[in-house]
Amino acid sequence: MAILVVGSVAFDSIETPHGKRSKILGGAATYFSLAASCFADVRVIAVVGEDFLPEHEAVLTSRGIDTRGIERAPGLSFHWTGAYAGTLSEAQTLGTDLNVFERFEPKIPPAYADSEYLFLANIDPVLQARVRAGMPKVRMVCGDTMNYWIKDHAGNLARVLRELDVLLINDGEARMLSGETNAVRAAEKVLAMGPRSLVVKHGEYGATAFFGERSFGGDGTTRSFRAPALPLADVVDPTGAGDSFAGGFYGYIASQPELTPAVFRRAMFYGGVMGSFACECFGTERLQALTREEIDARFELFREISHLDPAAD
Amino acid sequence: MAILVVGSVAFDSIETPHGKRSKILGGAATYFSLAASCFADVRVIAVVGEDFLPEHEAVLTSRGIDTRGIERAPGLSFHWTGAYAGTLSEAQTLGTDLNVFERFEPKIPPAYADSEYLFLANIDPVLQARVRAGMPKVRMVCGDTMNYWIKDHAGNLARVLRELDVLLINDGEARMLSGETNAVRAAEKVLAMGPRSLVVKHGEYGATAFFGERSFGGDGTTRSFRAPALPLADVVDPTGAGDSFAGGFYGYIASQPELTPAVFRRAMFYGGVMGSFACECFGTERLQALTREEIDARFELFREISHLDPAAD
Repeated sequence: MAILVVGSVAFDSIETPHGKRSKILGGAATYFSLAASCFADVRVIAVVGEDFLPEHEAVLTSRGIDTRGIERAPGLSFHWTGAYAGTLSEAQTLGTDLNVFERFEPKIPPAYADSEYLFLANIDPVLQARVRAGMPKVRMVCGDTMNYWIKDHAGNLARVLRELDVLLINDGEARMLSGETNAVRAAEKVLAMGPRSLVVKHGEYGATAFFGERSFGGDGTTRSFRAPALPLADVVDPTGAGDSFAGGFYGYIASQPELTPAVFRRAMFYGGVMGSFACECFGTERLQALTREEIDARFELFREISHLDPAAD
Repeated sequence: MAILVVGSVAFDSIETPHGKRSKILGGAATYFSLAASCFADVRVIAVVGEDFLPEHEAVLTSRGIDTRGIERAPGLSFHWTGAYAGTLSEAQTLGTDLNVFERFEPKIPPAYADSEYLFLANIDPVLQARVRAGMPKVRMVCGDTMNYWIKDHAGNLARVLRELDVLLINDGEARMLSGETNAVRAAEKVLAMGPRSLVVKHGEYGATAFFGERSFGGDGTTRSFRAPALPLADVVDPTGAGDSFAGGFYGYIASQPELTPAVFRRAMFYGGVMGSFACECFGTERLQALTREEIDARFELFREISHLDPAAD
């Protein structure tokens, strides 16, 4: 099963208490693709500039990711500069150079038309809606967004939310989108906006899924599910952890014949697994080298640290 | 098996977005006792003033709690005034009237001498150490503390920490005590100060146990365990949730013949269960009316929202 992702392929300049890196490969679609490619076929739609070199593309293609949808444009690629301090739970954005991304017009290559799973990474909801409309027959649509679109593009975002099977956002975004501080009330309000289910990421505390009445994944009785995060002694760089969570989550779902409640739960764990790996090195370094054995060993670790009797199931 | 708890029995005046209450029964030892009494025999050592009436004592004795160690002193009981806003994750203290608590000299009634489990609630570490010394034969010692003792009474607190089987504190206290922002490094430093294991409470995100090399509860391979919290739509009053967690956690342990890793894990879940109930009403109201059936039903709900295959174990 193939996942089509549209989003940013970019460069990041990052400073954390563990060091500093300049213009390393990043972007939501990059992290998502690398994480999801451990489970399923992944196809990317993005735009990059002249600074995106064959060595950068090879990071994706060497993991089997289809990059035919990555368009080249004159100029430089999207470049984000940020820093983390303290608990590393939140990035301080020091610079956002949109560059070629400013005029991004996603085009769906004919070879991508049969993708069954669509992921709308954090971009202008107008573009998210356009790609969604161009893929009318997909089996499932998941998406992300951020404070900027929530605050200033609410109408456009509302149209995207109605189309989503799963919306993946973080605590702050859920509060902003709903206007509610209580997590359950926030989730109820967000679900009322259209998504069939909502996954709220809590950083070092894991993630919670909330299921609407119409949701698949929900089993009718339990309206939420909490997945842990792995306590990490060395959070080297949390950049992309949320996108890696999304990639692990959605990649696992796409690898399964059917989205049952059990698959949704395991997908939440695989999301946490991929998010935890992403934090261990700067940029995409750790994701690039991952084996399925490492992933499944960590999945078992997630079970061990969260289950009453880890050996029983 | 009987638990002896020493700590505050007090009155709280509380304001939350759900309302306001004046001088209702509170205090760490009160919440702890009510929660623990659902699982084990509980004996309290505390001091109260002339405003502690038979109706207040009846809240404890009606749950089978032994109050012979609650000393009456001339004057008023300890009175805390606080308010919560926003996510209700942290209280703003508006007033702390120590009153009779200022001259608290814990005395161990002869009838309490055979208690096998000791809980040192958040009081002056000098008093914690004195009670610990007066109970040389207890099977297990757990304790709590807070920023005030960590900051200004570090030497006295250090002597208590060396005696603890389990220290239960929250995220902020773990960071302050260790001087580390990373949760794992903070835990390692705290464990190096003496406690055999550490339970860090994360409020609405649950709690994590960290096991030192010498710890029981740890199984040698997994050095941490994460228990969820229940997503609650109505957090009416979070006062005492941490003490109720401690009571559920320790009460369950005291009800079991042996502290195995499986018992420690279940205790973490029962802690979360009791903490969730405590938040549902003002003060101790919800805890006063709890049945074991409600507790076990919620325990199963905790399993459902956190386990990959809830029916399997």
